[in-house]
Amino acid sequence: KVIRQVIFFPDKHIACKDFFDSVEGCSRIRCDFGHTTTGFRQLLSHIKSARKSIDVAVYCISCFEIANVVLQRHKVGVKVRVITDKSMEIAYGSQNHRFMKEGIRVHTNKTPFLMHHKFVIIDDEILCTGSFNWTSQAVTGNNESVVITNEPWTVEPFCAEFQKLWQETVPF
Amino acid sequence: KVIRQVIFFPDKHIACKDFFDSVEGCSRIRCDFGHTTTGFRQLLSHIKSARKSIDVAVYCISCFEIANVVLQRHKVGVKVRVITDKSMEIAYGSQNHRFMKEGIRVHTNKTPFLMHHKFVIIDDEILCTGSFNWTSQAVTGNNESVVITNEPWTVEPFCAEFQKLWQETVPF
Ligand SMILES: [Zn+2]
Ligand SMILES: [Zn+2]
Repeated sequence: KVIRQVIFFPDKHIACKDFFDSVEGCSRIRCDFGHTTTGFRQLLSHIKSARKSIDVAVYCISCFEIANVVLQRHKVGVKVRVITDKSMEIAYGSQNHRFMKEGIRVHTNKTPFLMHHKFVIIDDEILCTGSFNWTSQAVTGNNESVVITNEPWTVEPFCAEFQKLWQETVPF
Repeated sequence: KVIRQVIFFPDKHIACKDFFDSVEGCSRIRCDFGHTTTGFRQLLSHIKSARKSIDVAVYCISCFEIANVVLQRHKVGVKVRVITDKSMEIAYGSQNHRFMKEGIRVHTNKTPFLMHHKFVIIDDEILCTGSFNWTSQAVTGNNESVVITNEPWTVEPFCAEFQKLWQETVPF
């Protein structure tokens, strides 16, 4: 099945966890969250779908909720590799230490320049790429775009780029 | 003709202007620049190909050489619109003032968040999108990626997003 999605941020609302994720649904009389899906949920659903591997090359990862989903997949045996910019060593909210503690391999660049990519490859099959760093601000604040596709003309060069980057970068 | 390109930065070298752009070619015995094409040249070639319109939504524009190409197209009647983040008002090397002075319409966001897109649409037909800000550092330093395509499933939503952003943003 061909995947061809374009997602723009900011999301208009934060999705209601009860409505979407609990068996009972949402029982609030007036719910502050959204009962329609969001770009953020669409992005997360692809990461949640990982069966074999998640290769992340994202400049800044500070969003707790995305990190949770990655950690969940890691815990069920999905092979996760993460590359961030080296500035994540000291960045507020950086999830790098949490990933490391849980046994996920994390690399950073050793160049004086930025590891500025914002892409993730799921099972060597699905690519999500764009302007979107994995921060909370990017979800509900910034203007951002993400292209999600499984077309080989995009996925294959990004897989090769990830392998190359993994060699060029060093353990966090 | 279908366009499907993926470009990764940093470029290994800066392309030799004489070799590529002058009638005489390069006459240096030892040339410090490159005589093979670069990702940067490929990106510029799409902007140079504009016949009708160039719609730019890029967080940071400080690269003199890309700005030159945009200005050249503006001068021959191509309809150019530029949206950057409002931080470009005070950013070092910002090309916004130069664009304005030459009569290009420039908008910035009025939200407290980032206009973090990094895309350009040429003639409503070709989309270049990715992690790449229009800075010199991004060309020869950073790890960056750009997807270039004319496939309608990507171009059309980005055109709609640009129109929406143009309404939401304000003259610089
Ligand atoms: Zn609810
Ligand atoms: Zn030369």
